[in-house]
Amino acid sequence: MIKKISHIAVIVPDLDESMKFWVEALGLELSHVEHVEDQAVDVAFLPAGESDIELLKPITEDSGVAKFLQKKGPGIHHICFEVEDINATLARLKEKGIQLINEEPTIGTGGKKIAFIHPKSTGGCWLSYTNSPPKSIGTGWRVWITCGRE
Amino acid sequence: MIKKISHIAVIVPDLDESMKFWVEALGLELSHVEHVEDQAVDVAFLPAGESDIELLKPITEDSGVAKFLQKKGPGIHHICFEVEDINATLARLKEKGIQLINEEPTIGTGGKKIAFIHPKSTGGCWLSYTNSPPKSIGTGWRVWITCGRE
Repeated sequence: MIKKISHIAVIVPDLDESMKFWVEALGLELSHVEHVEDQAVDVAFLPAGESDIELLKPITEDSGVAKFLQKKGPGIHHICFEVEDINATLARLKEKGIQLINEEPTIGTGGKKIAFIHPKSTGGCWLSYTNSPPKSIGTGWRVWITCGRE
Repeated sequence: MIKKISHIAVIVPDLDESMKFWVEALGLELSHVEHVEDQAVDVAFLPAGESDIELLKPITEDSGVAKFLQKKGPGIHHICFEVEDINATLARLKEKGIQLINEEPTIGTGGKKIAFIHPKSTGGCWLSYTNSPPKSIGTGWRVWITCGRE
């Protein structure tokens, strides 16, 4: 079951420059910045209610995010949903004939496990799952589904 | 101040067909469908936590949403933020030099007032404001900001 929108990712060419809009003009607050080596991005987290805006800045020229920026320019990349159980969600999607990019989760921001769904199965969107470690306050395992433009 | 993400809009060519993915496979629930004459779209609302996924189906060939679908195909169109005060938000953006498409709000789904910001000012995103009428339970006026790819 989807619990909420975890975050919406927006690709930007420069984090400092993007703060002039998202923080100074729009009024969001910067929570923190995280370097994600596996995905070759720096990620700025800006909370908005129960969700985050995540600004993604590619740090190499050949990552998926870098190629998206080169091809389509800056803008919205994907939506990420938090779900209760990543294994149940993956199983349900497989059962429904949805094509998965990752049949097993990989690692995203905050050490969360993620797994992408092929956009051919989603109507032009990416879907992925990510499974976070239990929070210190003990809410247990959680799962995200990510959806972006192809 | 931004209170939350109100909704994320996804453009689809067919509402019934899209339900096979968003409802049957992904597990979201359909709240209701609304016809918005001014924007020439049918809109399906699927709650996800405190936000909605809004599936937009163009009903003419010449609307902005129809042209987006023709040019870019189905996928994520915009993010919409709920803010406390539309007038204060518009004034703040003007003060920061942000280019507005609508200096005065127009009408969106649910009779809410909306006002778009030019994507040139947002790093490849659309921003808009929309001001809802007071709810029957009396939470007062609210405002949305919408952000999508150019």
